[in-house]
Amino acid sequence: MSLLSLIFGNKPKTATIAKERLQLIIAHERNGLSSQPDFLPALQQELIAVISKYVAVNPDDIKVMLEKQGNYEVLEVNIVLPEPNPTR
Amino acid sequence: MSLLSLIFGNKPKTATIAKERLQLIIAHERNGLSSQPDFLPALQQELIAVISKYVAVNPDDIKVMLEKQGNYEVLEVNIVLPEPNPTR
Repeated sequence: MSLLSLIFGNKPKTATIAKERLQLIIAHERNGLSSQPDFLPALQQELIAVISKYVAVNPDDIKVMLEKQGNYEVLEVNIVLPEPNPTR
Repeated sequence: MSLLSLIFGNKPKTATIAKERLQLIIAHERNGLSSQPDFLPALQQELIAVISKYVAVNPDDIKVMLEKQGNYEVLEVNIVLPEPNPTR
């Protein structure tokens, strides 16, 4: 799986409805020398909290993946944004 | 410029020193229907603040790029992490 496809490859056909999306990728490149614990899982919670301050996010619309690729720890967060409220 | 190269392509030769890095990419896919203002510039400040809670970050080691690619607004943050303090 390429990171390119993470961002640009997996968007569904949007003929029926054009949802706005927010995709967040954090890659932590480790040098293998430090014993620093992986902080991405904890960071993820706070990042979503920050994003929620700017856009109303339904927790059901948040997909999170955490994986390791070689020296990289990669956190991917995909959020489908709700329709903006037209009455505002 | 591909997003793939953003994450995996531009790492310098690490023969001299193996710095740890944190790369963060946020892509906001707009549907062109909403008039919601772009919140990525504001979000960026808060995201860096959150990351700074987990790792000591020197502001000089943070590089931020914000660009538009078609329907996407893409925020990229590259952070060189300081060496962990061995006395801790």
